[in-house]
Amino acid sequence: MDITLEQAEKIVAAAKTKAKEIDTLMNIAVVDRGVHLVAFARMDGAWLGSLDIAIKKAKTAKLFNINTGDIGALSQPGASLYNIELSNGGLISFPGGVPVKNTAGEIIGAIGVSGSSVENDHAVAEAGSLAL
Amino acid sequence: MDITLEQAEKIVAAAKTKAKEIDTLMNIAVVDRGVHLVAFARMDGAWLGSLDIAIKKAKTAKLFNINTGDIGALSQPGASLYNIELSNGGLISFPGGVPVKNTAGEIIGAIGVSGSSVENDHAVAEAGSLAL
Amino acid sequence: MDITLEQAEKIVAAAKTKAKEIDTLMNIAVVDRGVHLVAFARMDGAWLGSLDIAIKKAKTAKLFNINTGDIGALSQPGASLYNIELSNGGLISFPGGVPVKNTAGEIIGAIGVSGSSVENDHAVAEAGSLAL
Amino acid sequence: MDITLEQAEKIVAAAKTKAKEIDTLMNIAVVDRGVHLVAFARMDGAWLGSLDIAIKKAKTAKLFNINTGDIGALSQPGASLYNIELSNGGLISFPGGVPVKNTAGEIIGAIGVSGSSVENDHAVAEAGSLAL
Repeated sequence: MDITLEQAEKIVAAAKTKAKEIDTLMNIAVVDRGVHLVAFARMDGAWLGSLDIAIKKAKTAKLFNINTGDIGALSQPGASLYNIELSNGGLISFPGGVPVKNTAGEIIGAIGVSGSSVENDHAVAEAGSLAL
Repeated sequence: MDITLEQAEKIVAAAKTKAKEIDTLMNIAVVDRGVHLVAFARMDGAWLGSLDIAIKKAKTAKLFNINTGDIGALSQPGASLYNIELSNGGLISFPGGVPVKNTAGEIIGAIGVSGSSVENDHAVAEAGSLAL
Repeated sequence: MDITLEQAEKIVAAAKTKAKEIDTLMNIAVVDRGVHLVAFARMDGAWLGSLDIAIKKAKTAKLFNINTGDIGALSQPGASLYNIELSNGGLISFPGGVPVKNTAGEIIGAIGVSGSSVENDHAVAEAGSLAL
Repeated sequence: MDITLEQAEKIVAAAKTKAKEIDTLMNIAVVDRGVHLVAFARMDGAWLGSLDIAIKKAKTAKLFNINTGDIGALSQPGASLYNIELSNGGLISFPGGVPVKNTAGEIIGAIGVSGSSVENDHAVAEAGSLAL
């Protein structure tokens, strides 16, 4: 099963609601199982540089079926996946990317959020991922 | 004035309505004046290859403030802008990209649509551009 | 409001004056709000490798509305934005990029300077940014 | 001998004067013998997509020490340099790029201009190239 546009839009809407709730301006991207964009929204005034980061976070989360921040722990100097960020056209390994599951628990895509602290980015991504 | 997310979402919604009306499956992208993505939607079952084309059409339309198909007429072999498509990281010069104006007539962004014939792509892009 | 060419040229001129004052040879780039180049100057004898860095510094400063050096503090190993430099086609996260504000205090673009120590690069960028 | 910044700025100024004279809005780029940017100016309201084209025209003109339009005649389907535009990270083979010579007749760089018809682009580039 792949994510539908209706599901992706529900996720983006939930992420926007959470972003406003914590007073942040976010870029929000949702990708499918093949890491291709399904839906995207950039809130007015959000950092322009976060556009690419939001998309890369969503891709990274789906490429490895993992929260992006979990990769960052392994990609530091001396760690086992040092500089893995250079693969796949550029990964983002700090928090803000979260896999999206359907009600059966299968991963059907991922959400990436960027525009604030990594804690806020992750909180908004998680809120989005739980919308289904 | 730059396009707002609310305006971009209105444009995407109008384009989706038109796409369904003419029984097509589209990728729909909206960019701001600086050709950066504001909103995007890929309808379920739409060609995956049209994702990049929709974004490139939106960018091309804003980069030159013109419908993309008008560039194609000038970029043919022997014409004055032959191979201009190789500039700007890749342009798309066939129909489906249309500048977006606000009610004051100022260009504030552009929409790019891909997923069907270029006639259908243009019709959907135009419907989107007229939503404001 | 976007930066005008006249403003950008005033910024480049002020940066050149400062560069000469502290006896350095600089590459100086000014971008608009959409991070597209408006004006550029490379002083005779300035490092060729600093051309790309000056442009990337200007882009980085505008992409996040921040002095580039402030990103570097967050992108180190173990810090929250580790390897963010790989996003957006390549960021520069050491000093020398500064947002440019108009007299109303709105960010209308950014300046990036490269060619000497990062302290000198920043001093020249700041001098440029204060020219309006 | 390589072009100096002072010479490049004189060329940009002459090109701007010509652009205003014929009522056009141009992107103007000057590169050195190594095809690296020395000076650049984008006039207010000029097409954003012409930024990359102006730089590519200047590079193309210096890469082959030729007016860019002369390459276009050879790069058409069936001609000897078919699709040469794909080399060097992207060439532009229509008019608007012109080599720049010093008073001794040596090529010291090139100017590239984009923003109007190819005839106007070439006229402005030529006016710039004759400023020394």
